[in-house]
Amino acid sequence: MTRRFVLLSHAVTTPEFTLKDLAGSAKRMDVVCRAVQAALFLSHGIRTDTTLFAVLHGPPRPPVTVKLDGALLRKVHPNERVLGIFMQKALRAVATVPEGDWVESTPGIFVRRGGLAVLLDELGGRVCLMREGAPDLRGTKVPEDAVFVLGDYLDPEADWLTGLERRDPLYVSVGPRSVFASHAMVLVHNELDRSEGTDTRSDGK
Amino acid sequence: MTRRFVLLSHAVTTPEFTLKDLAGSAKRMDVVCRAVQAALFLSHGIRTDTTLFAVLHGPPRPPVTVKLDGALLRKVHPNERVLGIFMQKALRAVATVPEGDWVESTPGIFVRRGGLAVLLDELGGRVCLMREGAPDLRGTKVPEDAVFVLGDYLDPEADWLTGLERRDPLYVSVGPRSVFASHAMVLVHNELDRSEGTDTRSDGK
Repeated sequence: MTRRFVLLSHAVTTPEFTLKDLAGSAKRMDVVCRAVQAALFLSHGIRTDTTLFAVLHGPPRPPVTVKLDGALLRKVHPNERVLGIFMQKALRAVATVPEGDWVESTPGIFVRRGGLAVLLDELGGRVCLMREGAPDLRGTKVPEDAVFVLGDYLDPEADWLTGLERRDPLYVSVGPRSVFASHAMVLVHNELDRSEGTDTRSDGK
Repeated sequence: MTRRFVLLSHAVTTPEFTLKDLAGSAKRMDVVCRAVQAALFLSHGIRTDTTLFAVLHGPPRPPVTVKLDGALLRKVHPNERVLGIFMQKALRAVATVPEGDWVESTPGIFVRRGGLAVLLDELGGRVCLMREGAPDLRGTKVPEDAVFVLGDYLDPEADWLTGLERRDPLYVSVGPRSVFASHAMVLVHNELDRSEGTDTRSDGK
């Protein structure tokens, strides 16, 4: 089963940001880049069984969803600056297509205008909402069709989550301390890796 | 007890690298920056109970050790570019002091010429060497005085490890998949956090 993560981000929806200031003027695009590292990279390979969706809610025209599919990604490098460049390419591409259509901006990276609600409708599966103080993932039976949803450095705003409650999300946490979204993804992957045991699903890159 | 991590890095020992190419010409300084993020940052605070030592083995004059003390760090930000700037400041400062002396380059960041052997002599404690396929940390009783030692994207070279075997290191791993050094640090922290339970040791920054 594909592992699916959704990051609810405050980052901008314009490609006009400087790579020198991913954290500031791009409204924590650095957090998005680190989520890509955590969700999709192994030490010498890509997690080909994982897809990350970054839903961006920053100005000027939110929401925009960027999808990174580990099975299709090519030529990405896990450093923040390079990942920032790929995000710029995605945000440049979304301007070229009608509302709601996906467009592939670079291999394995897709983008469209739209937010969480329509994404979850499409994905199906059980939403696992990561929240501090919630029951520990380690003692939880993770549904096969889980979609892990995380906030970035600030709580998601209420209107981003419209309709989420009626999906009966499972609330989970990853330990006693409050950690970065990217680090929470590392911990989720580790739990799932352990439950699946050793295998070799990476492209050996 | 302070948590101590040592990253054995291939990164350069000169400050003359470009922040646009931390991964290339700086020989994976991006990996060092991510280790700093993982070892020292919580979602909204610093791990004041943790110290990271990055031992740099790249040209021109290795080894150089950079020490980042969570209890003393100020004004750092977890993005790679900013952390790269702090590494440049440290590497600029090391040129100004005699061999073997520590100098504080910015608050909480110290640097000196010297490698792993002298560092371990100073630190004391039990070396826990992170290695794929080693016994799982999760079932291991971690010594109170553990010093976790990790490689970066390549195995450490033999001469970096001179004298390590006679210290009777404990070999440990963090799961079935091969992950980044930074992600291994996240997993170590999480195990230790769980064994200690909830507390509030951060400066709330």
